Amino acid sequence: MSIVVVGSVAFDTIATPSGRADDILGGAATYFSLAASYFTDVRVVAVVGEDFSAKHESVFHQHGIDTRGIEHATGKTFRWGGQYLDNLNEAKTDFTELNVFERFQPQLPREYLDSRFLFLANIHPTLQAAVRLEMDKVLFTGGDTMNYWIQRTRAELAETLKLITVLLINDTEAKMLAGETNLPRAAHKVLAMGPQALVIKHGEYGATIFFREGAFGIGSHPFRAPALPIEEVKDPTGAGDSFAGGFMGYLASQPELNREVLKRALFYGGVMGSFAVERFGTERLRTLNRAEIDARFQVFRELTHLE
Amino acid sequence: MSIVVVGSVAFDTIATPSGRADDILGGAATYFSLAASYFTDVRVVAVVGEDFSAKHESVFHQHGIDTRGIEHATGKTFRWGGQYLDNLNEAKTDFTELNVFERFQPQLPREYLDSRFLFLANIHPTLQAAVRLEMDKVLFTGGDTMNYWIQRTRAELAETLKLITVLLINDTEAKMLAGETNLPRAAHKVLAMGPQALVIKHGEYGATIFFREGAFGIGSHPFRAPALPIEEVKDPTGAGDSFAGGFMGYLASQPELNREVLKRALFYGGVMGSFAVERFGTERLRTLNRAEIDARFQVFRELTHLE
Repeated sequence: MSIVVVGSVAFDTIATPSGRADDILGGAATYFSLAASYFTDVRVVAVVGEDFSAKHESVFHQHGIDTRGIEHATGKTFRWGGQYLDNLNEAKTDFTELNVFERFQPQLPREYLDSRFLFLANIHPTLQAAVRLEMDKVLFTGGDTMNYWIQRTRAELAETLKLITVLLINDTEAKMLAGETNLPRAAHKVLAMGPQALVIKHGEYGATIFFREGAFGIGSHPFRAPALPIEEVKDPTGAGDSFAGGFMGYLASQPELNREVLKRALFYGGVMGSFAVERFGTERLRTLNRAEIDARFQVFRELTHLE
Repeated sequence: MSIVVVGSVAFDTIATPSGRADDILGGAATYFSLAASYFTDVRVVAVVGEDFSAKHESVFHQHGIDTRGIEHATGKTFRWGGQYLDNLNEAKTDFTELNVFERFQPQLPREYLDSRFLFLANIHPTLQAAVRLEMDKVLFTGGDTMNYWIQRTRAELAETLKLITVLLINDTEAKMLAGETNLPRAAHKVLAMGPQALVIKHGEYGATIFFREGAFGIGSHPFRAPALPIEEVKDPTGAGDSFAGGFMGYLASQPELNREVLKRALFYGGVMGSFAVERFGTERLRTLNRAEIDARFQVFRELTHLE
């Protein structure tokens, strides 16, 4: 089934210990779309400026991604610059130029409205909620957020969390949102805010999915997927969005939702995140094929499974 | 097969967000012995003072642990005091009174010398090496170390690492020892120093075992075991030593060493660590039975395994 993603398309300038890239295509919706496109049909909603060319848009088209929801506005595309020092888990932002993204009002093409899966990437929670309410055929909503919204728009975020099926955030965000340093306790507090499930991404240590009691009728035991030990992380940008793309894309591709499907989705999330960081920007995500993805899925399995 | 452990026996004074305990039995050799005792015969080598009573020693005897290698010296037993604040992963030391431990010279009873398994808990690397060389029937040596020895006795530690089969340390120690922030690269650098395998403990995220190329004839792919998401960590003290006890104890109990056995050992390490932190000090490790341990092993499996 098709999935709609709403979020940023950007040009990134990135420096890591492995090198540097200037003004390369990025943004949460871009990473998400490319990762999910290996599993299902993707429809993107975003805003870009006049500097976003047909060549940039063709990156989406090459993966069959529907770009009718990309609004072309007057002005420049969102730009972000950052660097990763020795600690590749944390970016130091050099600059953020919101440009056309500052007044982003997601425009949903009529043709998108029959999608059953929706991913709300990291944007203002009020915009997230508006999109979800407009997409009234949606059965499953994934969502992301960040420290900025947790601290500054807590009331609005609380409303949005009631509309989200699975929230995907990292350890720091989960602890901040819950006001609680113990991870499983933080998870339960976040689940009490609305979502049926919570995926907490642990970076190089993998991810855990926590379920609300009774969610999906599958029992509330958590499940953990690994991350791959990678010797050369070229560029961590977009790893989390690629994780979400693998997770949601796999879910949308399945005929039914059960515990086993959710577990596998968590593994596919890790797989897509592991590919994303192997090259700068979206490079690796553009050149994959499903056989490579499934081979790495087996590597993840061998990394953690007893006989 | 029996296993000899050399390390500290101590009295700990511990404060955590869950409470406080004064002068309770602790020390690396104690946690290790108790954890390993559920799998195999354990022989302990340590030094204690005059304040170490028959009642304390009976804790070992109740688990069939051979204490003939515990030297009773004149003076007081090693005492450590520390507290865990919100971050239960890190202890703040309040005091360290080495007492009789300061002049610890491991005395190996003749009856211990036929053991094939040896665990060198965290003591001066020169003492570790001396014990290993004296135990000339040993086929498999586990070892621990810490930042203190990595920084101050690097040359001596380098010699000891050549005698160790599997080194068990945490992320920070592995990165410091290798002078490398990327974990798999750090692992390979540590393996080049001597050990056949390296277990890196990630605290609440589990542990990874890295193998030297050709080690044990089992291929060099790493393997990851989870940790259990625990809502109330009462006292993290001894988690790493309990992990080592489960890991080494299980290995020593098996008729042969192969990849599957090493993988399961990593799971049993996580299992024993998860029990250790549920109560203060050694309390939970004293009251376990093998059925509880194997039930939790299944929980660990369900936490990570796809169908």
